[in-house]
Order: sequence, then structure tokens, then C-alpha cells
Amino acid sequence: MSLMSDAYLWEPGVVLAEVRRSAPLVQCVTNAVVTNFTANALLAVGAAPVMADVPGEAAECARVASALLVNLGTPHGEQRKAMREAAEAASAAGTPWVLDPVGVGALSLRSAFAQELLELRPAVIRGNASEVRALAGERASGRGVDAADEVSTALVAAEALVERTGATVAISGEVDAIVGASGTVRVGGGSALLTRVTGGGCSLGAVDAAHHAAAGGEGERRGLSGAVAAHALYATASERAALGAEGPGSFAWRFLDALAAVGPADLAACAVEIAPGAAA
Amino acid sequence: MSLMSDAYLWEPGVVLAEVRRSAPLVQCVTNAVVTNFTANALLAVGAAPVMADVPGEAAECARVASALLVNLGTPHGEQRKAMREAAEAASAAGTPWVLDPVGVGALSLRSAFAQELLELRPAVIRGNASEVRALAGERASGRGVDAADEVSTALVAAEALVERTGATVAISGEVDAIVGASGTVRVGGGSALLTRVTGGGCSLGAVDAAHHAAAGGEGERRGLSGAVAAHALYATASERAALGAEGPGSFAWRFLDALAAVGPADLAACAVEIAPGAAA
Amino acid sequence: MSLMSDAYLWEPGVVLAEVRRSAPLVQCVTNAVVTNFTANALLAVGAAPVMADVPGEAAECARVASALLVNLGTPHGEQRKAMREAAEAASAAGTPWVLDPVGVGALSLRSAFAQELLELRPAVIRGNASEVRALAGERASGRGVDAADEVSTALVAAEALVERTGATVAISGEVDAIVGASGTVRVGGGSALLTRVTGGGCSLGAVDAAHHAAAGGEGERRGLSGAVAAHALYATASERAALGAEGPGSFAWRFLDALAAVGPADLAACAVEIAPGAAA
Repeated sequence: MSLMSDAYLWEPGVVLAEVRRSAPLVQCVTNAVVTNFTANALLAVGAAPVMADVPGEAAECARVASALLVNLGTPHGEQRKAMREAAEAASAAGTPWVLDPVGVGALSLRSAFAQELLELRPAVIRGNASEVRALAGERASGRGVDAADEVSTALVAAEALVERTGATVAISGEVDAIVGASGTVRVGGGSALLTRVTGGGCSLGAVDAAHHAAAGGEGERRGLSGAVAAHALYATASERAALGAEGPGSFAWRFLDALAAVGPADLAACAVEIAPGAAA
Repeated sequence: MSLMSDAYLWEPGVVLAEVRRSAPLVQCVTNAVVTNFTANALLAVGAAPVMADVPGEAAECARVASALLVNLGTPHGEQRKAMREAAEAASAAGTPWVLDPVGVGALSLRSAFAQELLELRPAVIRGNASEVRALAGERASGRGVDAADEVSTALVAAEALVERTGATVAISGEVDAIVGASGTVRVGGGSALLTRVTGGGCSLGAVDAAHHAAAGGEGERRGLSGAVAAHALYATASERAALGAEGPGSFAWRFLDALAAVGPADLAACAVEIAPGAAA
Repeated sequence: MSLMSDAYLWEPGVVLAEVRRSAPLVQCVTNAVVTNFTANALLAVGAAPVMADVPGEAAECARVASALLVNLGTPHGEQRKAMREAAEAASAAGTPWVLDPVGVGALSLRSAFAQELLELRPAVIRGNASEVRALAGERASGRGVDAADEVSTALVAAEALVERTGATVAISGEVDAIVGASGTVRVGGGSALLTRVTGGGCSLGAVDAAHHAAAGGEGERRGLSGAVAAHALYATASERAALGAEGPGSFAWRFLDALAAVGPADLAACAVEIAPGAAA
């Protein structure tokens, strides 16, 4: 089966339409900085956020959620418990989950914790190039939560993670790369203003989860279809938002408006390029 | 005394004017997702927010606050301690407090915890129909924090809560119902966009607290006057915000502008309907 | 050396240009209410925020950060651990740090905790008049997080803190006062709308940290140069944002746009007045 095959990848617009139709319940165990923006992004795309991150509730929620996001931005003790609990329950119940390894590589506590979580087999890993490289055990050059590395430098690391965990790995950058076992899909476009708004990347992890829930197929096919659709939506919506923006403040609310306004047909124009079998 | 009596309920505009004049200090022990939006909503209406949710400080604050909100959105261990501490101190000091049972029914830890809090006699309970039904012990159909039930299905549950706790119960929905011992007041209008912004409902709980602090009278009279005013303000401000909004992003900031701009006279046009003695 | 000397204080525009050039990494251990707005303010001015507030990571981050903010807005147990850890590591590593004593005086747990932190020698203390007075041991009249006192009433307290800790003390109010050992600089202008947005003051503490990192000189010179630049930027940006704002909601995003748009040359018009050797 080739990525190029029409029958293999779902069209981004089809996945988005399914998000809108099914309103997947997306549980987020995420950091305090972006939790509001993330919930608003999910509402804007048509998903139903539930930010249940308390030990004793996180597993219960993960069993009924359509998908789960675990984001390592501010991993307090009680939140780490909730993350483990939710990821274990998701894994056992067949709820797909997304790992966003924010700051891995730069900070050691979360770097070790992320390795534990990898054992629970996330369906999707979304991060910048520095985080993906660090997660795969490479020495990366991230400083805090910035990506200091280019997407291209993280493709080998992404392939190693795909092989080790079975996840689809989505690397955010100037041109995003979505890496599966059979090859890589590149999603271009978007606006750099998205990097000037906190939560621009973190909320994409949650939207990845929503699209993964809505995508058809199994395994790699579902992983790629969902992530490509989510990244195409972010590229399209951020371009639209940038048109009228006068700075990062006006960009942020225009972006939420655009996430709600962009329709399945709008995604057809997005620069999606499939490079089967050749990740590097 | 009938709800219909002019002398019984305060006019919503009179309560709002008193909020603006007295700037009540509203303590919020609320969830991480909406704490920023909630503080901004309180500032916009003219109240003074204080988000003191740390054990060891929560009681001290509750003793001097004009009113207290306890919102169960993300009830971490330390926050549950602070909630209990604050509600106990409020109860002892005569500080009126509002309980927002977010997600009760859908998640079991908070469902049990909410029953404990009910013993501390909140002045107002604000939630959607699913939460109010679950709080009263009915089997509800909420999924996470969504309301899957219509307001009308929760009126019997609300009456049971009124009888059990003495609180006024405010049910948010297409037409809100404010339930007291003597009857029900319905507040219509508003914009559905408010449900597309996270914190749309949670911030109303805090604004309920501000208006309860400002309302005159005692017991049911104060409970109804405050809640009707707060819900009328939300309906009026959300309609005004929706006029110029192009999506949930532009609605959110327009709503904060509208909360600040709506004056007492604007509330006269709000669809408030009193159904004395006939909750169902 | 006199504050009047051209060679002593850096021009605010020069400091801002250096922030933009060097993109200082500013670690924030701050409260849940404002963490999103604070990160967005730092991104808007051109700094790189890292909101690492977890024990076990906070010190590691503080050792490599350009500057650190410790803000006492919601000092949960685990956050207090992280604050101590970060401030100790910053102090040992020579990372300058800013203390924002939110609510000190009004709430006793944080009031005692702030005294501990003072021993770790912050480079800058930023607060309103009530907080500065309370931090210096005076009886202040703050109510929660409001300033009930005028800036002028806190100048003696600020001088005492300068003497005790070596910090520069920045008092926010109608006209801000930046107090060093050699005298006081007053920064006027600005818009009152900034007080209607939660995080208006708290985010300034983070921007103070960014400008302190970028300012040249040592000790008092650096403290004054950084804080004067940050406060001049806030005054200038808030005036610009207020021009088109229709309320606190539209002001907030316009303010973020303005923080990004204001250039070094724009700060020349800011009302900065130097009163050497005469704090009162």
C-alpha cells in the first residue's frame, strides 16, 4: 500500500467534516499556560474539550473520551500522576492518545518522564524538531520551549520513534513533516505569527487528537490521515488569520475565528506533499 | 409574598448599578482553564476579583470577601482543600457563596466532593441541566462538561436542591431557569456563541456571586434578585457581542467589552419571565 | 555618579532594542490566572518565555535563563517549592530575578513567604503601593490584589527595601516610581484600561525581567535602566492600545499588538522624570 494511493490517506477535508459531524470528546491533560487557548481551539474546530487532569478522574475520563492529549508543558506532581493514569487507561481502553513532549531535552525531569509515557504507546507524537530529537535520544539544541533545530534534522529521530512506538510523528516547523512507517507527508504554508502566540503549537496537539479520533482507517493510515488534516487546518487557518492581523494579539482571536470558519473545501488548497518511503 | 410583587425581586438594572457602585470583592476558587476569563469578566462588570485558591489563605480571604465562587472544573487535591476551607469560612462568616458543579455526574470524584460541599449551604448553585440533575442524585446524560439535557428536565431536580440546601438554583440553557422556593424565573435571550467560548458558563458563576453580593434582601429574595440580574446581564451582553462577531474568537473580546458597556437601563429589555409557584 | 548623567541610565529605547536583538529567555514562576497573558506579553516584546514552575526543573531552568520572575499570585505548595528552588538557583548562578509580591499584606501565608524570598536578593521588586508597603513591614490598606494606597505613600517603604535587599523597587500606579539607592525615576502616562485587564501588572513583572536581562551596567544602574525601559514600554503601548479600544476586551489584544509594534524610537516621547537623591 502506498501513501500516494487515493485509497490510503483520507483527504484532509473529509477528516475535518467528520470532526464537525461527530464532535469528538477530547480530553486534555495539558499545561496551565495554554489550557484556555487549547479548549477554545477545540471548540472552534467543532470538538468538545474536557480538561480533566485530576488523579482519580483522569482515567475515568480517558475511558470514555474519543481521544486524549498529554502535554508536558508544566508537569506538576499531581498532573504527572493524572497523565500516567490517563495514558494507561487510554491504552487499555483503546482510546487513541497524543503525546506533546514540550520542553523535552531542555529540562531533565520531563525528559525522563516522557520516556515512561512512550511505553504506553501514543498514537501520535507532536513536537518541534528539538523535542522530537531529544525524545529519540539525540542531543538536541532546544532552549526551553523554542525549537533551535530545523525540521529536516529531526527526520531520522522521527523514524526511530515510529519504529519504537508505532506512533505517527508530527514535527512542527516552517514546513511540517508527518512521519509514518511508510513515508513522510509534508504540510507547508501557515503563518509565522502562530509562533508568536503561546499555545500555537500546544493547541495543535489537541486538534491532532480531535482529527485522529475522526479519521478512518487503522494504525499508520489513521495516524497520518488525522495529523495531515489537523496540520493542514492549522496552516490554512493561520494564513487566513494573518491577513487581517496587526500583531500577535489580533492574530490570536482571528485564528480562533478562522478555525471555526475554514471548511473542508478550503483545505484542498493546502500545500500537502507526499514523499513515500523517503523520510529524509 | 409573590415573586410578581414589585417589592419582592430587585430589578436587574438596580442590582447591576449596585455592583458598579460597590465593586464587590469576589473570591474565586476555580479551574485553571477559565481563571483568566473569569477574572476579566469580573473586572468588566465592575467587581474586584481575587483568585485566592491556596490552602492556608482561602479561608482568610473568604472571611473578608463580599462573595465566593467554588467551581469544580479541575479539582486538584490542594484546590479541594482550599475549596473546603473557603466554603467553611464563608459559611461561618456569612459570606454568600456560589457552587458551580462543573462536570458533576460525568466524573465520580467531583460528584462525591460536591455532595460534601452542599452541606456547607451555598447561596446559589449554577450549572447546566445535566449537572443540576446529577447534583440532585438523578441520572443525567452529560458527557464531560457538555449539557446533554434540556433545562426543563432539570426543574424537579432544582426544586429538590432548593428544598435540601436553601440555595437558589440557576440552570443555564437556551432559556435559563432561576429556581427558588416560591417559584421560577426564566431568563431568555443571549447568544449561542457564548457556548463556543470556554468559560462562558463558568464566568457566569462568578458574576452570579458579584450580583448576589450586591443584591438586597435576604434568603430567596436575594438569591433570585442576584441570579436573575446576572443572567439578564449575560443574555444582554452576549447578544450585543454577537452583533459584530465573526466567530468565537472575536465574540470573546466583544463579550468582555459588552459586559463593561451594558448599563442598568439596557437590562430592562431582557426577556425575564416570572412563573410563580410553578417551577415545572 | 548621578542619575542625571547621560552615561548612567540607559535610554529606554536602547534597552528595548537589546531585548529585540537578544530575545532573553525569561523563566516565569507565576500564577495560573495570568500565565497565558504573561507568556504572550513576553513573546510580543520579543523575549522568549519559559513557564517552568515544577520542583525538580525550576532550578535547572533558572541556571540557564536570562532572567527569572517569581510572582506570588497563587502560591500553591508545589509552586512555593519551585519558587524557592528557582530563586536559590538564580541567586547562586547570577541570574537576575524579579519578585512580584501580589497580594502581600492582604493574605498572611504569602506575606511570610515573601520575607523568605527577600533573603535571596531579587534584582527588582515590582508591585503596587500597598504591596510594597506591606513587604517593607508597614501596615498597608490593600484589599486582595487592589492597591488602595497612592504611589507616593510607598516611597519610604521602597527606600527601606532598596537598602535592605539591594533591589530596585518599581511601584506601579498612576505615575510609576522606580526607586534605586541614588534616587527615584518617575514614569508617567499609560492608560487606566491596563488595570481593567487581569495580568496588566503581573505581566509587567515579566517584562521587567526581560528588560533587566537586556540592560547594561551593574547593580542599581542595571536595575533602574531595565525597569524604567519596561515601564516606559508599558505606558507607551497601553496609550496606543487605548486609542482604538472600546472596552477591556478590545484593549487586551490591542495592547499585545502594541507591545510588538512599539519601537525604540517611540519610547523617547514617554514621560520619564528623574528625581536624583530625592525619593520623596
